[in-house]
Amino acid sequence: MAADNPLVSDREVEFLLYELHDAEALTALPRFAEHSRETFDLYVDSVRRLARQRLWPAYGPMDEQPPLLRDGRIHVHPRMHELWPRMVELGLLTATRPEVVGGMQLPLCVSTLAEVYLMAANASAFGFVGLTKGAAHLLEAFADDELRARFMEPLYEGRWSGTMALTEPQAGSSLADVRTTARPAGDGSYRLRGAKIFISGGDHDFLDNVVHMTLARIEGAPPGIKGISLFAVPRRREQDGRLVDNDLSTAGMIHKIGWKGLPSLVLSLGERDDCHGWLVGPPGAGLHCMFQMMNEARIMVGLNGVATALVAYHEAVAYARERPQGRPLGGKDPTRAQVPIIEHADVRRMLLRHKAIAEGGLSLLVRTARLADLAEHGGEGQRAGARAQLDLLTPIAKSFPAERGFEANALAVQVHGGYGYSSEYRPEAWLRDQKLNSIHEGTTGIQALDLVGRKILGDGGRTLRDFLDDLRTRNSDAAGRGVDPDWSAAMSEAIDVSEALTVELLGRGHERGPSTLAHATDVLDLLGTLAIAGEWIEQAGVARLGLAARPHDEAFYRGKLHAAQYWVANELPRVELLARRVTAADDAFEAISPDWL
Amino acid sequence: MAADNPLVSDREVEFLLYELHDAEALTALPRFAEHSRETFDLYVDSVRRLARQRLWPAYGPMDEQPPLLRDGRIHVHPRMHELWPRMVELGLLTATRPEVVGGMQLPLCVSTLAEVYLMAANASAFGFVGLTKGAAHLLEAFADDELRARFMEPLYEGRWSGTMALTEPQAGSSLADVRTTARPAGDGSYRLRGAKIFISGGDHDFLDNVVHMTLARIEGAPPGIKGISLFAVPRRREQDGRLVDNDLSTAGMIHKIGWKGLPSLVLSLGERDDCHGWLVGPPGAGLHCMFQMMNEARIMVGLNGVATALVAYHEAVAYARERPQGRPLGGKDPTRAQVPIIEHADVRRMLLRHKAIAEGGLSLLVRTARLADLAEHGGEGQRAGARAQLDLLTPIAKSFPAERGFEANALAVQVHGGYGYSSEYRPEAWLRDQKLNSIHEGTTGIQALDLVGRKILGDGGRTLRDFLDDLRTRNSDAAGRGVDPDWSAAMSEAIDVSEALTVELLGRGHERGPSTLAHATDVLDLLGTLAIAGEWIEQAGVARLGLAARPHDEAFYRGKLHAAQYWVANELPRVELLARRVTAADDAFEAISPDWL
Repeated sequence: MAADNPLVSDREVEFLLYELHDAEALTALPRFAEHSRETFDLYVDSVRRLARQRLWPAYGPMDEQPPLLRDGRIHVHPRMHELWPRMVELGLLTATRPEVVGGMQLPLCVSTLAEVYLMAANASAFGFVGLTKGAAHLLEAFADDELRARFMEPLYEGRWSGTMALTEPQAGSSLADVRTTARPAGDGSYRLRGAKIFISGGDHDFLDNVVHMTLARIEGAPPGIKGISLFAVPRRREQDGRLVDNDLSTAGMIHKIGWKGLPSLVLSLGERDDCHGWLVGPPGAGLHCMFQMMNEARIMVGLNGVATALVAYHEAVAYARERPQGRPLGGKDPTRAQVPIIEHADVRRMLLRHKAIAEGGLSLLVRTARLADLAEHGGEGQRAGARAQLDLLTPIAKSFPAERGFEANALAVQVHGGYGYSSEYRPEAWLRDQKLNSIHEGTTGIQALDLVGRKILGDGGRTLRDFLDDLRTRNSDAAGRGVDPDWSAAMSEAIDVSEALTVELLGRGHERGPSTLAHATDVLDLLGTLAIAGEWIEQAGVARLGLAARPHDEAFYRGKLHAAQYWVANELPRVELLARRVTAADDAFEAISPDWL
Repeated sequence: MAADNPLVSDREVEFLLYELHDAEALTALPRFAEHSRETFDLYVDSVRRLARQRLWPAYGPMDEQPPLLRDGRIHVHPRMHELWPRMVELGLLTATRPEVVGGMQLPLCVSTLAEVYLMAANASAFGFVGLTKGAAHLLEAFADDELRARFMEPLYEGRWSGTMALTEPQAGSSLADVRTTARPAGDGSYRLRGAKIFISGGDHDFLDNVVHMTLARIEGAPPGIKGISLFAVPRRREQDGRLVDNDLSTAGMIHKIGWKGLPSLVLSLGERDDCHGWLVGPPGAGLHCMFQMMNEARIMVGLNGVATALVAYHEAVAYARERPQGRPLGGKDPTRAQVPIIEHADVRRMLLRHKAIAEGGLSLLVRTARLADLAEHGGEGQRAGARAQLDLLTPIAKSFPAERGFEANALAVQVHGGYGYSSEYRPEAWLRDQKLNSIHEGTTGIQALDLVGRKILGDGGRTLRDFLDDLRTRNSDAAGRGVDPDWSAAMSEAIDVSEALTVELLGRGHERGPSTLAHATDVLDLLGTLAIAGEWIEQAGVARLGLAARPHDEAFYRGKLHAAQYWVANELPRVELLARRVTAADDAFEAISPDWL
């Protein structure tokens, strides 16, 4: 096992930040004016060191010894007790938040490239941070000063941790069916009753308290989404200057197959009718508040998918370089030494595909994060456009790494052969970890409906057309930098096919009702394949410049060019296949009766 | 969890045996003359009852409590002690073997459809049987009478179990590098020394003895494949009428991620130089003997892939019918009850894809097994052709279920949502089990090289052309039975594309050397997609007949027609995509230097 797995390549991060996505340009915006390449690098570097030195060595132990539920309390792996203060100390909880709440005001695209190391090292350990900052951010955005002081501050300071308490046994994908109730107590607070399930980080023993951002219905609220409100519900509440039990207990622990360090719990609220909660935002605006945070959460899931693929990629490459097995085709003299398996074309096929998925995915995530920076903090004329592009790309940036990342993680197992099938090697653990990403924060099927229904049909295809135009520009820029004309031509064709498909989809519109959406996952797959081709074409253009300017860096840039070639030649043609599939709108699964399955 | 999971549909088995693959016709051959539909059904029925009543309830316990290595011995799950005699009693070890060795002389295609229940129920438990009969069959084929009496008989009688001891730490895919040595002892036996790894069923505590069919080099043998011989090496050898230790010990246990009931061991042979082995077959013919059994072993792996997909399919359909979540698009009134998720088109898409892969795969496996029956026991004019088709289809029948089956098993996890990510539900266990099938008995990459190098280029494309002609015949037969003309046209086109690709591959031949083989996995993928389309087109034709003849069975036949439609409309078009990819012969991964990855 590679103790020296780099998790993420530092050269890659430098390339993405400064050669491709021009993070320095963001310092021209007032929000980021205090920053510079130096402050970006300082942050990323301190985080990557923590990832390599502390989180990564704890991954194996935390995977092998999951938390225990004992006497109603969760005991996490002892390593978490050491890791948490170190993560807090580096400022992970508030890196992108404004100075006014104690933050560093870093661009999301920079913190994204720092966090990818942490996720690659140990997704569970970082999960506590991700959930806590998500909860605090909700409070920052929607709570009044009193609630911010009571809950947001201890969260941002890392004294307490946070969760998202949305799901209930009968309400997973269908949040409209949340049943937990909230009764006004007359003192400004509410009494909550209900059950929540799959609550990650719902309890642990390394801090005094956990704040659950909880969806519930105020008594008498209308059914469905409009009746759902958001509450801050702590495990222990303050009373007379000390923390007392808030009638919120752990009813069970889910035995997840991955993310083993992060407990996933069944919570019971208000068994003694003494579970106090505080309303955050207006009554009935619970889902609206949550959805404001959705892009952020989905980008984090996409980033985790990328991170889980990246760490496995580095492991697989190292293994393939070291493991001797077999001899070249056409040179099978058994008296000669075996060659490392990286010499076999089919092994390189798997590795290059893995690279193209993981690095292409990371590039898309950085693009998406940068759009979020511009949507929040860009100039007047920039924000709306960036917001629209961000909204369009979010389901793709969430799902592509989850789906193709899972395939990549399976390739890493395959490259390891019989050893890959053993838990003494890590690839199988990452394969387990990865599978969650197509399920939580909106399944792939739900992302597809969001993409086609809301993001494409919802605005008459305008945002998608803008995206395709942007791809055209990037494609011709890349051609200008010396990218193979055949690749540019293939890219142009795929963009045209996607444009024609947009017209087709809009023509059908909502008229044909559900039918238009039946092949939504194909559209998601198509646009993911195309968007990643966009990353690779642009990376290839930059690599061409780099090869001329930095010849000592040839290996890095050649790797980029081959990955781009791989994607354009072998994966991009799927765009046409998928477009034909969507256009044909075969009704086999729409038409089949459930009884016939 | 569905305690009443049917594992495999009985109606499906009836359909495959008697409506599609005409198993009854085999009774016209002398080998199977004593048989009839009644004896086939009797056997299948007794096996499926054992699978459902005994093996399936033991699956969970055996997955959860893997074997223990204690004081050098393996202790398997207590359930295995009960299951073994029941499996032996039914005649599983000798079902297809001739009466002369105590067998039932059943066609392989019939025993295949019995075994699929056992594999779906509990692959590990059946694994001991599969390995034992494989070892005995090797002895039946290559050992002399004395060795047959000594080893084959106790194996076929189920008094001892058997293994295949091929792999060594440095010799997995590359068996040419086997190093275990065998020194002639002068008494007709040999003394073996060496280490073997990944030996499934290598030790246990439910029988007195284990016979390892072991590859080793007789001292002085030439390097490479020609120097490898086959030996029978028991854990305990007979001496003075009793069993004594044969200096073959368990050096370690691999912690596999699936197939948890079947221990995978590191074995050490001859540490005291007292490990006796007996040569089976001529010196130097070890790999030749093994390869004679290879089709059988690879068909078993393919069948396991199908079985693992099938059991998960039934589980996913049952879950999707019961789990309420969400409401139809365009009918989102929150006061109405939620609908079962099978009502959502995207869930049906996943289920129908799963069905098409699993049932299409099973049909291909039965075809392959039937070819094996004809290759062994067919008429004079039949055997050579059947053998060639069998050889061609074997890598496809092994790899398609392994690769697409893994995707299907991942879909079953996805359909189960958050619950699918929990080990309290079974889909994750089957996903783990399935992953082995692309690795053992020749990885997918090796199957692809075998297919293109040996099976296609090796005979100038003749066998592949015969296969394509057979597909044409089956396609026009199906058209004659009323299958949608669009499907027939799509199938014709895909066959033509494959024919053109064959010409292209042959034109390149071995001249371009390794290059021709670089896209071999694409060819394997293409022919798998096409072969499964062949199964579905033929099934659709039979379903058309069935709909007319047995209207009460409409649900079954409509399910078949929709699965066929799904495959032809949504998957078959990949044939053209893959053909273009192979023809383009993009060199991205061939050309990339290992240092650039």
